[in-house]
Amino acid sequence: MVEERDKWPTAVTEVKPNRIMNRGYLVDELMGRTTFAQAIYLVLKGELPSAEVGRLLDAIFVSSVDHGASPPSVLTARTVASTGAELNAAVAAGVLAVSRFHGGAVEEGQRLFAEVARRAEAAGGDEDKAARSVLAEMKAKGRRASGYGHRLHTKDPRTAKLFALADELKLAGRNVRIALLIERLLAEDLGRPLPINVDGAIAAVLCDLDIPPEIGNAFFIIARVPGLVAHVHEEKTRMKPMRKIDPEGYVYDGPAERKLP
Amino acid sequence: MVEERDKWPTAVTEVKPNRIMNRGYLVDELMGRTTFAQAIYLVLKGELPSAEVGRLLDAIFVSSVDHGASPPSVLTARTVASTGAELNAAVAAGVLAVSRFHGGAVEEGQRLFAEVARRAEAAGGDEDKAARSVLAEMKAKGRRASGYGHRLHTKDPRTAKLFALADELKLAGRNVRIALLIERLLAEDLGRPLPINVDGAIAAVLCDLDIPPEIGNAFFIIARVPGLVAHVHEEKTRMKPMRKIDPEGYVYDGPAERKLP
Amino acid sequence: MVEERDKWPTAVTEVKPNRIMNRGYLVDELMGRTTFAQAIYLVLKGELPSAEVGRLLDAIFVSSVDHGASPPSVLTARTVASTGAELNAAVAAGVLAVSRFHGGAVEEGQRLFAEVARRAEAAGGDEDKAARSVLAEMKAKGRRASGYGHRLHTKDPRTAKLFALADELKLAGRNVRIALLIERLLAEDLGRPLPINVDGAIAAVLCDLDIPPEIGNAFFIIARVPGLVAHVHEEKTRMKPMRKIDPEGYVYDGPAERKLP
Amino acid sequence: MVEERDKWPTAVTEVKPNRIMNRGYLVDELMGRTTFAQAIYLVLKGELPSAEVGRLLDAIFVSSVDHGASPPSVLTARTVASTGAELNAAVAAGVLAVSRFHGGAVEEGQRLFAEVARRAEAAGGDEDKAARSVLAEMKAKGRRASGYGHRLHTKDPRTAKLFALADELKLAGRNVRIALLIERLLAEDLGRPLPINVDGAIAAVLCDLDIPPEIGNAFFIIARVPGLVAHVHEEKTRMKPMRKIDPEGYVYDGPAERKLP
Repeated sequence: MVEERDKWPTAVTEVKPNRIMNRGYLVDELMGRTTFAQAIYLVLKGELPSAEVGRLLDAIFVSSVDHGASPPSVLTARTVASTGAELNAAVAAGVLAVSRFHGGAVEEGQRLFAEVARRAEAAGGDEDKAARSVLAEMKAKGRRASGYGHRLHTKDPRTAKLFALADELKLAGRNVRIALLIERLLAEDLGRPLPINVDGAIAAVLCDLDIPPEIGNAFFIIARVPGLVAHVHEEKTRMKPMRKIDPEGYVYDGPAERKLP
Repeated sequence: MVEERDKWPTAVTEVKPNRIMNRGYLVDELMGRTTFAQAIYLVLKGELPSAEVGRLLDAIFVSSVDHGASPPSVLTARTVASTGAELNAAVAAGVLAVSRFHGGAVEEGQRLFAEVARRAEAAGGDEDKAARSVLAEMKAKGRRASGYGHRLHTKDPRTAKLFALADELKLAGRNVRIALLIERLLAEDLGRPLPINVDGAIAAVLCDLDIPPEIGNAFFIIARVPGLVAHVHEEKTRMKPMRKIDPEGYVYDGPAERKLP
Repeated sequence: MVEERDKWPTAVTEVKPNRIMNRGYLVDELMGRTTFAQAIYLVLKGELPSAEVGRLLDAIFVSSVDHGASPPSVLTARTVASTGAELNAAVAAGVLAVSRFHGGAVEEGQRLFAEVARRAEAAGGDEDKAARSVLAEMKAKGRRASGYGHRLHTKDPRTAKLFALADELKLAGRNVRIALLIERLLAEDLGRPLPINVDGAIAAVLCDLDIPPEIGNAFFIIARVPGLVAHVHEEKTRMKPMRKIDPEGYVYDGPAERKLP
Repeated sequence: MVEERDKWPTAVTEVKPNRIMNRGYLVDELMGRTTFAQAIYLVLKGELPSAEVGRLLDAIFVSSVDHGASPPSVLTARTVASTGAELNAAVAAGVLAVSRFHGGAVEEGQRLFAEVARRAEAAGGDEDKAARSVLAEMKAKGRRASGYGHRLHTKDPRTAKLFALADELKLAGRNVRIALLIERLLAEDLGRPLPINVDGAIAAVLCDLDIPPEIGNAFFIIARVPGLVAHVHEEKTRMKPMRKIDPEGYVYDGPAERKLP
């Protein structure tokens, strides 16, 4: 027996016979009354989000559920699946590929916006000045701003939609404003647009929702795991084992564009 | 260049510049109009679920988002986190522990219910007879019925709630009926109740939603990843690195029970 | 405190202050007197191998240390490394790709040879008859013999060398004989050679060394981890992050052939 | 077809039909003439080591093959194995736990010794002064010297043996000297010994063998994978699935101390 005083603490979930409580709420009361997105926020932040925050979180997760077969996390998961590995092993391998250069821009974007906000506060609220000083320092060190620019999308449809929803739900705040400010300053400096990508947009919204940067990438991981499962399942059911997976030589053969009901 | 005819196919997502389409739907149209749970179903099944199915899926995911610090997936993720590993590596390790004996009951339960349904159909619809024959064969081989019984819960609150919701939403069908039938037959045979656990309940509901067993465990993985993140974050922020993690010597110190607003 | 009688047992290593004992041998006595290959055998089998067995194990591990950039384990490890992941995460992902169809032939080959041996014993020692009956059953079920045939090598140089060494060291026994017998029978049946590949050769030798099939694949994993490290290190030091890794479009630019001193 | 000029390069291994060449050496010539440890050095460094370097590498790998059931990598691998996962998945999970605070001291130790060596060179060869300045800076930043001190061993038998072998083989050089110098300075500063642990000793020897720090931890990973396999196999064959694995409540029941022949 471990003495009560020697026990280590956890504040996530209490489990007793026939009674499971997540952050103080009985799980059977949460079921049917909260969405998965709200429950995710609850376990991560410790508090139930409002319905509006829940809707914005749903949009964040929906935005990143899948981005086709070429991201390294998908190629990794498919390659492992093609060796005959179990579904969970293939998904775990995919999660290992969600690292600094893939998905990592959420955390880094959050740190960038937080730093600008911090300096603006210290300087009497001048966000423009704060952003310019942060960007100048990054440029001097040869570092790029995380969350801006995309290999393929010049105007990412997910960014526009996410910011529009955040506005509509009255949840866009200082960090979305700073993200847009940085987008303007980067365009000025470069002489061409370097638009906010979806990672940057999520980063700004998560900052406005007061999510700490340390778990920013987790929102991408949580969103993308279902996409990884879809690709692993497709690999196992449609493809031959041990094939060479060309990272660019694929073609979409799913349903043509259709409208939501 | 890969010739068009040599390209390999994928039906999950089409990505073109400034245009991302999941299973035929533009992601920016899905955002704000579908929940994360609905988008998960969409990428996995290929079709948008109804609002009712969406609500039931939310309840499935909410039911399994976390079950405290003792499941092996959580202990694995925390142990890896305590060595200073990155968040994604700790979560991936946790996913590797969602295997045959932990989370695996969903897929096995689905196969059990499907087999009873198949035999009942072959025998003119007699589900009772079909279930008895399947259970007798399993008993003869010394195999336990997956999805029944729990180390701790004699009446799992998640099972009751999930079945009640499925009923209310008119989504409970043959497989929920078969699951309850097997529960009765097991109690008869054992002389004591061996109630359906949450894995068994999810298995029955997923069968009624026509989800193939091969991805049954994925629903558990998807649900639990946020819980793993919560534990990894707690380990990294509240605990010392490299501690010995006693799998039973912990105490809940989160909020006391509170009511949903 | 755990009561002595409630402690769980392990027979691998005893650690006390300033005293580490692997399977009964002090590690500082093993150092300098045993090779790594011998120490691997010791921790896995529980006994120190002879010098001859040590030499054969060295040859097994050397045979499989690397096979270029195209195996799925290497592509997986490189893909994960290219996202900026840590070395251990990239290697772990590679290990997840050593599964049923990649590396898995060692265990399956061992089971095949053991089954032939078992039937031969039961039938008064007639290995030819036993092998024919096992192969006929596999053919009827549409199953291929594991450990035979190779995508690229019609006469794998590793197989010939490994069998020659086993002979020379007087360590080739019944299982190597059975492996060669099956090779003859397959050629007869197919009307063309289907030669033993390196996995099959390792399987036969491991059986003759009395290694259980459950850990056969471990010999491949142990051998290949250094190769994975070499590829991950090359990816991180020579290549750009987030590149698309063509699984076939690579060229060797290392040293030209050279002779051992 | 990829144009020759668009192919990406790799210098590790060339594979052609019936011809496999690691770093320029035919694998079937390496087999039987080099040890596994030498082949590991070859794929990682690109050159064959001398027999003496081979012997020292064997000692490094033997020193770290296993350290009992309590390291987090072993607990992780066992926990995953106890859920019914495959051997490779359990080993991969264990590798994920070889991170900053577990095994990471090799790389950090290498960087420490390299920094002292660099400053000594810049200052006309005064290693004592260089070491003092580096340690003073670390102390000012509240950073500990990696590779010194051990939870359990006050005089790690592996350190003494490894340094003795390096001496005997004439392979101990500047970095071993610096490691011992730092040990003296730390003892002076602390007023009590803080001896070099096995990670620190391996770090010093790897530096003298000119192994770059980026792959220092790989030597620990390569050495420990066989130990992980031994524990996973023991877990699967001796223990019940899904048991609670007490990280301290175990007892060694293997062979009593025995002498090498």
